Amino acid sequence: MTFKAVVFDAYGTLYDIQSVAAVTEEAFPGYGEIITQIWRIKQLEYTWLRSLMRRYEDFSVITQESLAYTLRVLGLAYDAAAFARIMKKYLHLELYPDAKATLAALKGRKLAILSNGSTEMLNALVKNSGIDRMLDATISIDSQRIFKPAPNAYTLIEERLGVRPSEVLFVSSNPWDACGAKAFGLKVAWIERVRPEAMALACVKSDVVPPLTMFKALRTQMDELGVTPDHCIETLADLPELMT
Amino acid sequence: MTFKAVVFDAYGTLYDIQSVAAVTEEAFPGYGEIITQIWRIKQLEYTWLRSLMRRYEDFSVITQESLAYTLRVLGLAYDAAAFARIMKKYLHLELYPDAKATLAALKGRKLAILSNGSTEMLNALVKNSGIDRMLDATISIDSQRIFKPAPNAYTLIEERLGVRPSEVLFVSSNPWDACGAKAFGLKVAWIERVRPEAMALACVKSDVVPPLTMFKALRTQMDELGVTPDHCIETLADLPELMT
Repeated sequence: MTFKAVVFDAYGTLYDIQSVAAVTEEAFPGYGEIITQIWRIKQLEYTWLRSLMRRYEDFSVITQESLAYTLRVLGLAYDAAAFARIMKKYLHLELYPDAKATLAALKGRKLAILSNGSTEMLNALVKNSGIDRMLDATISIDSQRIFKPAPNAYTLIEERLGVRPSEVLFVSSNPWDACGAKAFGLKVAWIERVRPEAMALACVKSDVVPPLTMFKALRTQMDELGVTPDHCIETLADLPELMT
Repeated sequence: MTFKAVVFDAYGTLYDIQSVAAVTEEAFPGYGEIITQIWRIKQLEYTWLRSLMRRYEDFSVITQESLAYTLRVLGLAYDAAAFARIMKKYLHLELYPDAKATLAALKGRKLAILSNGSTEMLNALVKNSGIDRMLDATISIDSQRIFKPAPNAYTLIEERLGVRPSEVLFVSSNPWDACGAKAFGLKVAWIERVRPEAMALACVKSDVVPPLTMFKALRTQMDELGVTPDHCIETLADLPELMT
């Protein structure tokens, strides 16, 4: 299959949002991982809820509000400096190890990011991680004032890159995002980073299902939304062979 | 404050959705509680995602799809009969113990349900629990083909009851629903069934945050969505005194 453009989701797809855990663990020993999991779930919920409520705020506001929720619910006291330190990490997330090599291998096509992140957050992130020069565009849904998976978000790809949806391969590890893009009419490669057998096994093996396993399940396993992505891959490095 | 109408959310507000746990526990020993928690989170997610994707399916479809997701992720094998038995419980949920007495005490005002549930599910539910004759209307968002907290869902109250938003007290234990109703312009009483001190304490006390505690936190603690309900009560029985 030939694609004129390959467009990536950012958070969780090119960037490992779990890489925030080192900073949250330092600020709140013993809570690092659970903070990142609750934070992520609420961050996503708030994008959907605010979109439906027609009370759009950009992703930096939503990321702050979902972090505030998380720390409050866990009963963790904090000062403004600790909060700011955690938030700052969102501009310095780590790329997945195979991200740069994959972008390099796909050279020749239009390459872009389409993300819920605000323009400011995304520009800082791609620059800090050194992939700004590898991308033709870093597209924030900001201008539409509605988050993915609303169709209005995915229309920005054609608008900004001039490539029709059927000639775009959209790449996301987020099941709801992969489904939203497919429902919109893009070709979609979903990255299944956690295998279902491993997930089910982790649940069966323990008497009490461990919370992190369950939170990961909610984010990593394909959703039941009536659509199926075109491709299921395990990692970014599997992308180049989909091009041939 | 005088209200011309009091309108209730159904699932989690008048009806205890955790009452499904006895049936799921019987079908899958050891998994009863965790199934209901994951099921509920995914059920809600799918209402929001399908609304945004403009791929509306009614609440009975979404409830089935989210249950299928839950059992798959937990690696639990099942047959159609077991699945149907669990689903059937959704038409026979238990009322909270103070629900009937509260409805009786509020008599004289217009009383109604506004729920994400499909018309068919809701009609069966109110009839099976014996409150059909206590209500002036059981309103499903079905006709709008978009779920709460979209404004289009809440407009049905004025349409069906002929009462202006500012004269309606909307009652919900679901934080996102309380926020959505408030953003729309209704007066709102939010039922805080789990106190924040208790929630934070449960997290602090255990080395590993227990999964059920965390799942409950995600559903029971007030969200950070930029709006605040007018009233915060602990149980349905607190409602009558808000009327004086």
